[in-house]
Amino acid sequence: SNTYLSSLPTTVFTIMSQLAAKYDAINLGQGFPDTEGPADIINVAAEALKDNRNQYAPLTGLPELRQAVAESNRRFYGLEIDPATEVVVTSGATEALAACLMAVVEAGDEVVLIEPLYDTYLPMLKMIGAVPKCVRLQPPHWKLPEEELRAAFGPKTKAMILNSPMNPAGKVFSQTELELIAGLVKEHDAYVICDEVYEHLTFHVKHIPLMTLPNMRERCMRIGSAGKSFSLTGWKVGYVTAPSALASVVAKAHQVLVFATAPNLQRAVAHGLNKDDSYYKSLSADLELRRDILVEGLHRLGFETLPADGSYFVVADTSRHAQGRTDVEFAEWLVEHAGVATIPVSAFYDPEGAEPPRNMIRFAFCKKPEILHEALRRLEKAL
Amino acid sequence: SNTYLSSLPTTVFTIMSQLAAKYDAINLGQGFPDTEGPADIINVAAEALKDNRNQYAPLTGLPELRQAVAESNRRFYGLEIDPATEVVVTSGATEALAACLMAVVEAGDEVVLIEPLYDTYLPMLKMIGAVPKCVRLQPPHWKLPEEELRAAFGPKTKAMILNSPMNPAGKVFSQTELELIAGLVKEHDAYVICDEVYEHLTFHVKHIPLMTLPNMRERCMRIGSAGKSFSLTGWKVGYVTAPSALASVVAKAHQVLVFATAPNLQRAVAHGLNKDDSYYKSLSADLELRRDILVEGLHRLGFETLPADGSYFVVADTSRHAQGRTDVEFAEWLVEHAGVATIPVSAFYDPEGAEPPRNMIRFAFCKKPEILHEALRRLEKAL
Ligand SMILES: CSCCC(=O)C(=O)O
Ligand SMILES: CSCCC(=O)C(=O)O
Repeated sequence: SNTYLSSLPTTVFTIMSQLAAKYDAINLGQGFPDTEGPADIINVAAEALKDNRNQYAPLTGLPELRQAVAESNRRFYGLEIDPATEVVVTSGATEALAACLMAVVEAGDEVVLIEPLYDTYLPMLKMIGAVPKCVRLQPPHWKLPEEELRAAFGPKTKAMILNSPMNPAGKVFSQTELELIAGLVKEHDAYVICDEVYEHLTFHVKHIPLMTLPNMRERCMRIGSAGKSFSLTGWKVGYVTAPSALASVVAKAHQVLVFATAPNLQRAVAHGLNKDDSYYKSLSADLELRRDILVEGLHRLGFETLPADGSYFVVADTSRHAQGRTDVEFAEWLVEHAGVATIPVSAFYDPEGAEPPRNMIRFAFCKKPEILHEALRRLEKAL
Repeated sequence: SNTYLSSLPTTVFTIMSQLAAKYDAINLGQGFPDTEGPADIINVAAEALKDNRNQYAPLTGLPELRQAVAESNRRFYGLEIDPATEVVVTSGATEALAACLMAVVEAGDEVVLIEPLYDTYLPMLKMIGAVPKCVRLQPPHWKLPEEELRAAFGPKTKAMILNSPMNPAGKVFSQTELELIAGLVKEHDAYVICDEVYEHLTFHVKHIPLMTLPNMRERCMRIGSAGKSFSLTGWKVGYVTAPSALASVVAKAHQVLVFATAPNLQRAVAHGLNKDDSYYKSLSADLELRRDILVEGLHRLGFETLPADGSYFVVADTSRHAQGRTDVEFAEWLVEHAGVATIPVSAFYDPEGAEPPRNMIRFAFCKKPEILHEALRRLEKAL
């Protein structure tokens, strides 16, 4: 069987979730909310099963969802998107990412990435035969190092993956950083796959899609996720917004990978995207509250944390408590002895690259306040 | 953007469905039933949205669905499948196929295929960089030519894709043909991706999974489809049954391609798989009735048809009526002048291979009897 895939470890999210179950731990590992998304969206999904639209959806998605995606691009970012030709609905953001990479990257092409990075980027790239060029954000402030970034671009650069708001770092890229990136991308005539699944989950920091910068519209494939925007991570409905020339190739990849996505879920997501601003505001405000509970609690326990302005996640420095353990060992120790599951951040670095930092673990804070408090009590007791 | 994908035509199913809409034609092109699947399955899907299980399903599928898949393998084929390690749930059979191919095939490997073939096989293979070796079934009886098949296997053969019951041919491979295939596969130490999405749609002919033949258990990845078994093609829930060593690699590919599938649909499909034999009997009996209506009608109109013992499809010879038109031209003529959409069978041959036959069109008969009668009346009027 495929040598690379066979050697690929099971995703760290599954492993830590299994450990969490084994030790009956509070799962602050895998990023999913423990509160369901809005009841009205769920009801639309249930009702939509009952009026004879359970056969194949169109390849690029139901018209009403493509329309809602275009509308939400206009509302939040002033982007004019043609719903007929510039939106492709996918079976979640993971599929969207695979389809976008297949659409623009071929064997031998170089792709610029920023570490720490989400754990399907590298396997998907390597399946295509592309060459990753990783640049590392620098703790303790997740600084993007300009010289390293510049050096990662070269004549073979075909694309970049930019994840903002970023998992696991919780970083939201600033206007200045985006301008630096846009300049390099244009200079090297590259594409950007913009993984913006946490676009609505920022905390008093403005999320700026790279696509909105001058002359970047034509180079960007912007990925959104209903799972993240509506706290329904199991639904696996994603969407790509891209100029039509690129969107049509993404659609071809989608045709070969999955073909279509369940119509009832698409209709419910269209309903969700049309929710008014108060929904989006309380989504991020609620999450910010949870971040604050966790971060303040971690500080009380003596952990230093890295800035987390968006996403479900905050990264903590383990140096103070790990007693020489690596992040992996410490995360395993925590799940067993504190009953709290986290994710070791070294899992988000290229295993074929230089030695990753071993002193950081990621906490998901998309959990009920009382759960976060209980996790903090457990940590306090164990440490 | 990716040269191969960019050049890939939009799937013929979408094109013919669009033409059907344009000319207000009866759509006997794309294969989907015009009657919804069982109401109880749909109700389970709707209820399952409402009890707080809308976050990520496990990577390989919900335990209850894996259990139901294993149980159905035992019930129908006497196969003993471990639900924990030998089943992977996917977002439809198209994703299952992509994941199985990625799991066992690498660039340069040869893969044996039987033409006419389903239209994602070749693009997916070519994306991987594999080399297709196509063998053509011979009209008018869809005979599998032994010498050609033998010649297609060689030292570089890594896998075969076997689609039985077969789309578009409607062929169900016989025990003798399966033994021939099994012998060659073992001789060349190859894997088989068994696309058996129409497993429950056969007409007084027994479907035999290749996996049930001696020593084939370890070599086969068997793909099933809830869309096809429960007339809910839009749901896109598929499942792969494979020995654990292969299933674990298929799961890795699934991890990178999609990761998981909507829990409520999985739960409803588990319910569906557990239906008693009378469900499956009436599913195929109803469809057989429809096949008979269409085939008898086509014969009355002077079309010869090829055998169709399974699937949604029957292929008709156009020679008598096409007046020199190719299958593509004739299908376009029919949609415009008869108001009936079909699929030209040449679309199911490798566009880079030898000239395909140009005298066959495919009809889908998974439609209401009155619709089939109306389509036949329209054809009669136009011809
Ligand atoms: C697809 S499982 C991983 C969920 C997630 O985004 C994360 O935990 O990082
Ligand atoms: C995925 S659209 C094609 C449906 C189908 O299986 C067919 O028409 O052959």
